[in-house]
Formats: sequence, C-alpha cells, structure tokens
Amino acid sequence: MAGNTFGNLFKLTTFGESHGVAIGGVLDGCPSGIEIDLEAIQNELDRRKPGQSAIVTQRKEPDTVEFYSGIFEGKTTGTPIGFAIHNTNQKSHDYSHIKDSYRPSHADYVYDQKYGFRDYRGGGRSSARETASRVVAGAIAKQFLPEIKINAFVSQVGKMRLEIPYQQLDFAMTELNPVRCPHPETAAKMEEYIKSVRKEGDTIGGIITCVAQNVPVGLGEPVFDKLHAELGKAMLSINAVKGFEYGSGFEGVQMKGSEHNDQFNQDASTKTNYSGGIQGGISNGMDIYFNVAFKPVATVIQSYETIDKEGNKVTTKGKGRHDPCVVPRAVPIVEAMTALVLADYMLLNRTIRVK
Amino acid sequence: MAGNTFGNLFKLTTFGESHGVAIGGVLDGCPSGIEIDLEAIQNELDRRKPGQSAIVTQRKEPDTVEFYSGIFEGKTTGTPIGFAIHNTNQKSHDYSHIKDSYRPSHADYVYDQKYGFRDYRGGGRSSARETASRVVAGAIAKQFLPEIKINAFVSQVGKMRLEIPYQQLDFAMTELNPVRCPHPETAAKMEEYIKSVRKEGDTIGGIITCVAQNVPVGLGEPVFDKLHAELGKAMLSINAVKGFEYGSGFEGVQMKGSEHNDQFNQDASTKTNYSGGIQGGISNGMDIYFNVAFKPVATVIQSYETIDKEGNKVTTKGKGRHDPCVVPRAVPIVEAMTALVLADYMLLNRTIRVK
Amino acid sequence: MAGNTFGNLFKLTTFGESHGVAIGGVLDGCPSGIEIDLEAIQNELDRRKPGQSAIVTQRKEPDTVEFYSGIFEGKTTGTPIGFAIHNTNQKSHDYSHIKDSYRPSHADYVYDQKYGFRDYRGGGRSSARETASRVVAGAIAKQFLPEIKINAFVSQVGKMRLEIPYQQLDFAMTELNPVRCPHPETAAKMEEYIKSVRKEGDTIGGIITCVAQNVPVGLGEPVFDKLHAELGKAMLSINAVKGFEYGSGFEGVQMKGSEHNDQFNQDASTKTNYSGGIQGGISNGMDIYFNVAFKPVATVIQSYETIDKEGNKVTTKGKGRHDPCVVPRAVPIVEAMTALVLADYMLLNRTIRVK
Amino acid sequence: MAGNTFGNLFKLTTFGESHGVAIGGVLDGCPSGIEIDLEAIQNELDRRKPGQSAIVTQRKEPDTVEFYSGIFEGKTTGTPIGFAIHNTNQKSHDYSHIKDSYRPSHADYVYDQKYGFRDYRGGGRSSARETASRVVAGAIAKQFLPEIKINAFVSQVGKMRLEIPYQQLDFAMTELNPVRCPHPETAAKMEEYIKSVRKEGDTIGGIITCVAQNVPVGLGEPVFDKLHAELGKAMLSINAVKGFEYGSGFEGVQMKGSEHNDQFNQDASTKTNYSGGIQGGISNGMDIYFNVAFKPVATVIQSYETIDKEGNKVTTKGKGRHDPCVVPRAVPIVEAMTALVLADYMLLNRTIRVK
Repeated sequence: MAGNTFGNLFKLTTFGESHGVAIGGVLDGCPSGIEIDLEAIQNELDRRKPGQSAIVTQRKEPDTVEFYSGIFEGKTTGTPIGFAIHNTNQKSHDYSHIKDSYRPSHADYVYDQKYGFRDYRGGGRSSARETASRVVAGAIAKQFLPEIKINAFVSQVGKMRLEIPYQQLDFAMTELNPVRCPHPETAAKMEEYIKSVRKEGDTIGGIITCVAQNVPVGLGEPVFDKLHAELGKAMLSINAVKGFEYGSGFEGVQMKGSEHNDQFNQDASTKTNYSGGIQGGISNGMDIYFNVAFKPVATVIQSYETIDKEGNKVTTKGKGRHDPCVVPRAVPIVEAMTALVLADYMLLNRTIRVK
Repeated sequence: MAGNTFGNLFKLTTFGESHGVAIGGVLDGCPSGIEIDLEAIQNELDRRKPGQSAIVTQRKEPDTVEFYSGIFEGKTTGTPIGFAIHNTNQKSHDYSHIKDSYRPSHADYVYDQKYGFRDYRGGGRSSARETASRVVAGAIAKQFLPEIKINAFVSQVGKMRLEIPYQQLDFAMTELNPVRCPHPETAAKMEEYIKSVRKEGDTIGGIITCVAQNVPVGLGEPVFDKLHAELGKAMLSINAVKGFEYGSGFEGVQMKGSEHNDQFNQDASTKTNYSGGIQGGISNGMDIYFNVAFKPVATVIQSYETIDKEGNKVTTKGKGRHDPCVVPRAVPIVEAMTALVLADYMLLNRTIRVK
Repeated sequence: MAGNTFGNLFKLTTFGESHGVAIGGVLDGCPSGIEIDLEAIQNELDRRKPGQSAIVTQRKEPDTVEFYSGIFEGKTTGTPIGFAIHNTNQKSHDYSHIKDSYRPSHADYVYDQKYGFRDYRGGGRSSARETASRVVAGAIAKQFLPEIKINAFVSQVGKMRLEIPYQQLDFAMTELNPVRCPHPETAAKMEEYIKSVRKEGDTIGGIITCVAQNVPVGLGEPVFDKLHAELGKAMLSINAVKGFEYGSGFEGVQMKGSEHNDQFNQDASTKTNYSGGIQGGISNGMDIYFNVAFKPVATVIQSYETIDKEGNKVTTKGKGRHDPCVVPRAVPIVEAMTALVLADYMLLNRTIRVK
Repeated sequence: MAGNTFGNLFKLTTFGESHGVAIGGVLDGCPSGIEIDLEAIQNELDRRKPGQSAIVTQRKEPDTVEFYSGIFEGKTTGTPIGFAIHNTNQKSHDYSHIKDSYRPSHADYVYDQKYGFRDYRGGGRSSARETASRVVAGAIAKQFLPEIKINAFVSQVGKMRLEIPYQQLDFAMTELNPVRCPHPETAAKMEEYIKSVRKEGDTIGGIITCVAQNVPVGLGEPVFDKLHAELGKAMLSINAVKGFEYGSGFEGVQMKGSEHNDQFNQDASTKTNYSGGIQGGISNGMDIYFNVAFKPVATVIQSYETIDKEGNKVTTKGKGRHDPCVVPRAVPIVEAMTALVLADYMLLNRTIRVK
C-alpha cells in the first residue's frame, strides 16, 4: 500500500536507498517452472548500469544481483524470488552541499515535508537507482513471456526526433550505439548533442518509444485496469517521466473518427493501428506501441541559488557524475516495466472464463 | 482484481452495462462525518448526462442516482455508500446492425475474444455510460476535499487549441458554454467546428486540461504509486483517452535541466512550475496541472465495411444519437477521477508518520 | 480496504445497513460463461431469511434479490454482478429504547467511538442482515464449482453435541428440520431446547460443522494465504463467531505426532484425515472439514442496566423479534463463505504454473 | 497475491526457503520516525531460534538479521525496510531419505502437485524457518506500538492445561523457563513431559494463549476485516496451527446470552469480558485474548511407511534434530503476528473519519 509494490498477481516489491547497504526486491507470484537464464538477467542490468558509455554518468557501480530464493535447480519454484544488489559505492561521500539545502526539482523538499525526515545521501529512495530492481524482475518477466517481443528505443533527444515509423526500423541496431536509437545517423547526432549538453554541465530530456509484439488478444481488465492504463502507470512511475501516450496519442486528437477507426481485415487484424494494439482497454493482437516522455534530469553541474530547511537562501553547485540525458539508460527500464505489466495481465487473463 | 475497483483506501467499485437494469457502485472507505450535498452530486451527473446541449448526443437519460446506504441524517457514516442509476433507456432497441458484426475501434471484438461472449447492447460494459458512477463517487470525494479546487476544461478540439495559460483563465466561465472551454471566443469556434463535424456524421478528438489547486504538500507514495502515476492511470482508464502528460509534459523533453528546474522562493513555493506540482511523485503545494488526450469516438454515422464473428465481410452503418466530440461531457469525468485520486492519497498520507 | 470486500480474484464487495434503503453488493471477477440458476440463488436466500420457522426470529423480510448487471441471456458475462435486496421493513420503528443507550455486547459503543457516529436503526451495518449479500454471492460461487460439495450443518446447540462423525450422516437430512442438524433425534432435542430458551427471552450459542468434498488438490497459497487461514478469516467475519478449527482442531493438540500423521495410501489419499484436507495450507484432495463456534446472540428480551452516551446508567429492555439461536440460519452463510473462498482460490490456482 | 504478503498498510512480504541462500522480507508502510532498537529485534529472533534449550530442536542457526534499507540514523524513514537472514546451515545435507518420498502430514505432496516441482531441502518454503522473517517485522511493529502490551505464553501441552486465568499470571515469568509457561510448577511438568515425548522420538501439540492490553478503542474494519478475523487469519497462517478462538471461544457456545453479555461500567469498560476485547469486529478497550491450537509437528524420529512420487510404497525414518513440541518457540511468532495486525489496524483506523 505504501507504494513499493507493483502488479496484481505477478507482483514486485522493491526496497533500498541509493547509498544504503543494498537495494533489491521480492518477486511474488512468478509461476513455477520457468527456466531462468541468469546471464540474461545480468545483461539487462548491465544495459541500465552507470558508466557504460561516454554519454551517461561515469559512476562505477557493478550492480551484481544475488538471488536468495525462489529459483532451484535452474527453474522458478513458484515461491517468492528474493534478490539484492549490494551497493559498492557507499564510501564516505561528501554530502555537505546538499545535506542542508533542497535541490530544485528534486524530491528533497517533499520527502522532508512528508516524512519529517530525509535521507540526504544521493537522493535515498527517490534516486533512480531503485529502478535496477525493476530491471531484474522485468528480465524474469521476459523469460516468462518468450513469445512476446518487447523493444524500446530512444526516439527523441531534446528537439531531435526520429521521424521514421518503427515498422521501418531494425531493433537489432538499438544496442549498437550508446544512445540506443536504432537509426545510426540519428543516433550519432543525438550522441554528439548529448555530449555538448554535458560539456555545459547541463541536461536534456527525451522520448522513449516502446513496441510490444506478439501480445495475445485479450489482455486487459475493464474498466479501471485497462491494459494501457496500467502501462501508463508503470511508465509514469519511472523517475523523470512526464507523459505517456499510446497508439495515435496526442496527435490523434486532431483526427476524425472516420480516419482514426482501424478497419478490420478478414482475419480480424486491422488495416491501420491507431488504436495502438489496445481497444476498450484490451489487447487486440496488433502491435502495442507507446511513447514515454522524460524531462531533463534535475542535477546540473552549475551553481544555483536555493533554500535550506529553515528557508534561508543558499548558493550551491551540483557536483558528482550524473547523467546528461537519462533516456539511453532508461530504455531497459521501460522494457522491464512493460514486461512486468504484460506478465501480470497474462496471469489475470487466465482467470476470466468458466474454463 | 478484475478491474472494476479504483483506489486503495477511498475505494470505488462500479458495476453495470449501458443497457442493463442499472449501473452503480459501492464507495468504500469514505470517512464518516462528511456532510453530503445531494444536489451537488446530481449537478455533477447532469454535467455528464447526454442530451444537455446541441453538440453532444441527443439521447435522453435522466441519470438519477439513488443512494442505498452509507449516508444517514445527511452525513456519511463510514460504512460503504451503495448507489444505483437505473437505466430508463432499456426499451427494445434494434441492435441487428451490430449484433453480429464487430464495429471498428470499438471493444466488440476483444470482449468476444476475451470472454467468449459479448453484450452487444450498446457496448455493454465497455460503454462510457459506466463513467456516470465515477462522477457520483467523485462528487462525494470533492465534498470530502472542500479546500481543494479541481477545475477541468476543454483546451483543444481537433486542431483548435486554446493557447492561453490556465493562470489567465476564469474557470467560472467553463460552464457557460456547451464546449466547456473557459475562453468564450475559442469556445464559440470549437462549438461551430463540432457542429460541422456532426453534420458529416463524423467525430473529432480533443484535449482536456485539469488544474488542482490548494493540494497540500506530501500526497503521493513512492515509488510505484507516485501521485502523477495514479493520476495518469485514472485518466487513461476513461474511455477514449490516448495520452496523459503533467507539468511540462511532452514539451518538456526539449528543455534543458537548467531552464526546467523550478527554483525555490523562500517560502518553498517555486518560481516556475514545470514540475506540475509534483516532485518525486509527491505533491509540493504548487498547482497540479495535466492534459488528457481523447481520440475521436469510434461511432460515426457513416456506412463502413467490417467483419462478423465468422470473419465474413459485412457492410453496415452507424446509427443512433452519438457524441460528435466527447470532450465536453468528459470534463466532469476528468474532475471526478482527479478527486478520487486526491481523496485516496489524502487518506494514505495520514498513515506515513509515527504520529 | 475499509473492510467491505472479500476475496482476491473472485471478489465480493457489500453495502447496506439493516434498516437502510437496500443492502447488496458487487461480485467482481466472476468468470464469464457460468449458467446462472436464479431460483437456486433465491433458495439459498430463503434458507437464511427470518421467519422461516418457529425457532428463528419472526420478523418477515422477503429478501428478494434483484440483479442489475453481469448476467446476460442466462449466463455470467465476466463483468461485475451488481445486485440489491431492498429492505421492505423500513417502516417507522421505535428505536427510543436503544437510540441513546449502548446495548451490551453489541457494536453500538465501538461504532460510536470509531466513527463519531452511529446508525442506531437495528444495528445498521453491524447487523447480520448484511450476510444476505454474502449468501447471494456464495450461491453464484457454488454454481461456478458444481463438482465441489459443500455441506454445513448444526453440530452443537448449547451443551447438546452431535457426537456422530460426519461421515455417518446423510447431509440430505439437514434441510428436513428447522435446526438444520442432519440427525433427526438430536435435531428434535435441539429444537425443543431452543424453544425453551426463547421462552425465557434468552439466547444460546452453537457450533456449525462444514464439510467440503471433491476439492481438487492444490488450492491454497503459501505462506500467509494458506487455505485454512482464509477459511478461518471468512468464518470469523460472520457475526457472532468466536472460534474456528479445522481437521483435528483444538482436540488435536493432545495427540502425538505418530498418531496424528495421516499415512498415505498408494493413490496419495490418506488413511486418516486429521489434517482436515489441508497440508501446508494447500488442499490435498481429502475432505475439508471445520467447526465454527457461535456465541449466544446479544439481544435478549429481558430488562438490563446499561449506559448511555454520556455514561449515565439507564435501564432498558430488549424487544422485537430476535433469534434465540443463530446457528440454524447461519448454516447457509457458512456454506456461502466457504464457496467464496474456494472459488477465489480456484482462480488463484490457475496462475501458479508456467503453463 | 501469491500469498507471501501480510497486512494492508503495515505490510510484510517475505521470501526464502529453509535451505536456500537467505530468508528475509520487506516491510512496507512502516511509518517514519520510529526509533529502532536493533537489539530488541535480535532478542525476539533469539526467542524463536533453534537450539536455545533442551526441549527444542538442537540445530544451531544463529539467525542474525541484516537490514538493507529503511532505517537511517537510528530511525525508520518511511521507506521500505528490506532485511535478510542468511542461512548458515546450507552445508551438503543428505536428503536422500526424503527426496523421492512424501513425508506424511507435511507439505511435500501438495507442493509437488501444485507447482509441478518441489524443493526437497528441509521443506523449502513450507518450513517454519520462514517465520523468522515475521518475528523481525513483528519486533518493529512492537516498537511502533510501545503503549500496547502483547504477551503470549504456553497454556497447554498435550493434555496438560494451565487452568489459572491469565489475569492471575505474571507475564514476566514466561521467559524464565524453556516452555514459556508463566506458571513455574506447570512449566516444570510440561518440560518433563516434552522431554519424555522427545525420548520416544515423538512430538506433541499444545496451545498458546495471547493477551493484548492497552489496545485503543476502535481498531477493526467491518465487515470482512473484523479485528478478530484478521487475528485469526494471522494465527492460522503460522505453521502447524489448527484452531483459533477469542474471548469465550468454543466454550462460549454453551452460555446463554444473559450470562455472556458483558455489562457496562459507567466508564464504558465492561464487568466481564467474554467478548475478548472485540465487539462487532472492533476493539472496545478491554483486553484482547485468544487461544491458538498447534498440532504435534509431523516430523517424528521413527520409521514409517509412505509413498514416493510414482506411488510406490517406501519405508523411511525421520532423522535430524527436530522440535518435540513446537509451542515454546512459537510464542514469539504469535506475538509478532499479533503486533503486525495491530500495527496495520492502527494505521487503517487513522483513515476513517473526516478529520
């Protein structure tokens, strides 16, 4: 209830602060009998980890996951999967620049107000470090759903937008560049741009597009738990996300019903897919695709004026090794949350008919 | 679990098909001692009801709510509030044009696939008629939160966009025109446009902007139940919604961190509000504002080709009295869902400190 | 969350006060495609209703259920089943004897303290009238589980105990006498005894035994949601229940492990069944049986001294037409709650394996 | 949902198999600002641990808990408390005697049937070792509720029953003997009896009585989440529990209403307390007391005939170091679960009034 659990049946609960002893989680409700590829899980974590390229934070965190339970002789057992990622980066940091002041557009002020308390070490629970636990669970969800293909990629950085429809992209190219944009020319420009932003000590936002293919017909629970509503919540729960749209999205409001309606082919596939693979909150077998907007991260390496706990003005300066643009590292997180939603709704969908 | 419940503590469960005996719901967890203004509830329902103006569906449904429990001597008692809205419009309709065929971009096909079954009477459970129950519960939530001001309005119809910042609008004007756009000149143009679309037998999409003011600091549960994540889910669960963005939203991805960061005033308010009143998933006391994108409704009064259950091609034609543009009637629904989220998170927030 | 919902997937939410407009509920998560026998549902309600025999309350409440949604053309549709039972007994009662005083061992005092408020009309929400909604939902659960046989019966009234093992009883005889004890001689004695208690204006407690047969192996979720833990909660949530035991129960504590262990037959059935059909919280295919203890109901038709809201002593007297012994009418309630648990756990059990 | 989570707001999720890498859990919803006494937590664990006396299993498991998150500078932060207890006892055991056969009255057979799989190492998830995580969380709950006094003790072993009312006992004596019975003479007899049972290689059941004092008026949610219903579920979820009764319990069925009713004093306390501190599912400020029945544990050190996976008869023999009587070690578990329920319901009770 306190907000650290996601999912109804395939259910992840996470814990951990960015500079505490460990982060981790419990994945409950994962069906028994899934063959687990541990390397594939670690590979997903590596896609998210800091220090992997020149355009992300240069912090070094190995992010090695240890499993404590729920996997036996290479398979899931049906019991909860407990896991932890120990923080190796706990050495005495200097937090004096943030301990007593509130960084703008961070969660410092609201945590203090809400809990009467604040873990000032690197953001504590509000740090995106927490998403590593989601990536672990999402990697297991992917292994539960081998037939479903989930591909996220960076489609916009700042004003630079990839205008090519996803159908014309080769998702295999996403991992070939540090931006995780599957169009090499665009990726190169984005990379250069991010580097220039980093030099200014600044940050820039972006958009991730995600495509889920081979999703069976029927996933989604009316009325409040529509499939896209849960996907939306999943994405909006990721740090720095400001918006979610699926199918025709915000552009679609300009269309007329007669053009927006997806006409059926005789096999019940549709000629267009403005619906984004979901109708009435239920998957219709077409590709599910959506966009996720990320704001520029708040930590800039520039001096700024802010206030302390007592409301005094203070001048401070961001420091440390932070991400100039969050989207390249957020790609595996978007995929992980998509996988968690689909796994959960796959299980829910087993329960809705008399037999 | 089957998706007809919304909220954690302030919790609404709804039932009912568009052409069944009645729709309604149970609002559980509503605190005791709230003085209930029944007229205000009916007024919200009237804002949503069909037939209220020339630019919405001309169906006549009085939508009178009956309360069965939970209110005694004018106040809530703390016990569940059961209510029903009987359908007066159940007379023998002619559904032959849709009974055996799947309307494009409706939920007909997916319901049939999911449940092995389909209630072909006017959309059954997938009809937006269900949202009347949300409006009832939302009206009660508003009465629980008298200090919070929730104002939604139509900010875009098709390509027509109200470019004036909400701070310069007078929300009292929203109800003065049938479009529910608080800017009379823009409203008049939108109205004319919707009428022209209706004449074509077509439909058009739009955007609703919602502003919640006087929200206390501290609402929102890290990490999965961030306030904006729940708001996003709430909005995306409304029929025809394709997108949600808050604060700087999709536009914000083009900004740099140095401009996007909301600098503090000494009273901990912020000079700008790109954050949209929420930081780290927790309200910071500034205005919460967000946009909700609605697609053009699928029912067009034009003939079209589609398929039947056996996959045969059939030609049919929409008929009946449907909404050319859903956004004017969706304004009270957006407000209701906002109120439900805020009421729920207000209660959750009572539980997070030792005293 | 506020306690008016039962079940995880097969989920009942109820509403209603004993003397309000109506009681009722929403059954969500009921699978689609169940053929519904409405007469069988009404029959279960009739087993619970007041006035059915000389040893239960003589109030007349027809308790006719109306269904509002979720059933179409004789089958469940997968959408929520809304229903209501209107209270016909709302005419101006005289509550002056209880309005200002707290009846001992009723919920009057605690409701007032908890909610700052109290519905003094016949107990309001704390009345056992609420259980009628459970019986409706339980009757649907039974129709979802036609192969499972659930039989409850009265096994003790006061000190009178039916000592015959359930295996030697003919459950078909339960309904042949007003006590609902399937052993006619014992039933006759119990009936006479209850009549004598009624003459004194007093009440007496009793025990209901319930047997569930043909339950498949595998129902029950470790570790907190063990099958018997959920059954126990279900029973303890019924008004007046003070205890629950299953299998060997409280007697079993006197046994040694070597005698208590249920040895296997070669077909994996067991030679004895001290386990009560559940091992490690999971059904093992043997009969599930348990006992439910009901206290004597608190309303006695005798004068007594008590206190009013201000703590003044007052002398008052119970009146009206109340049950001298609650167990005969509670038999269908015990069965209903058993059916709800088994239906829910049957659905949960569909989700626990990879395929 | 898969059953490894307990609580609504103060919510514990546990993981871990008896012979896996670690057991542990996540306590979410624990309010911020609780001063944590780590020694007190470890002390509770030590009360539960094996090897602490001559009448419990002689296995040596240090059961040292490590906290990973949620506690900072000695206080809870409001974020989830992750913790683990590493298993030190993982060395290569010989499981050949149980790997291929089903031990009677254990969970071996049902786990295999349910999950298609079985962790044969010492019971895996079905082992009572899991309850150590509950004790950790319960110890934190106790620190959240310093004013409430929770005292459990052994009141029966086999046929030996402590007949003295709890009001005449000195709970401080409970910890002074290995049986955890606060009456030294009875404790000495029980201890001797347990030793004799152990010599036979057999086991014996028992009853734990628990008393919660200073519980405020108002805890408990009608109708399904009555306080005693949740306590009952909590207790029944503990390994080996077969029954739960509170207040007058099973004995109370023999009483008449006129004697069972708890008459009020002028301060709203009651002259008797057959209600067990709970009326209508809500605490009334009087002592809450209840009994929990534990069966004799299934592992006996005797040879027995059973079946293997293929249904062949096999003869085997229990071995290892098991508990001849589980109740002495279960006392802290009963207290922990009581504390978890009360903490949760204390938080729920903050949300039920308009202010």
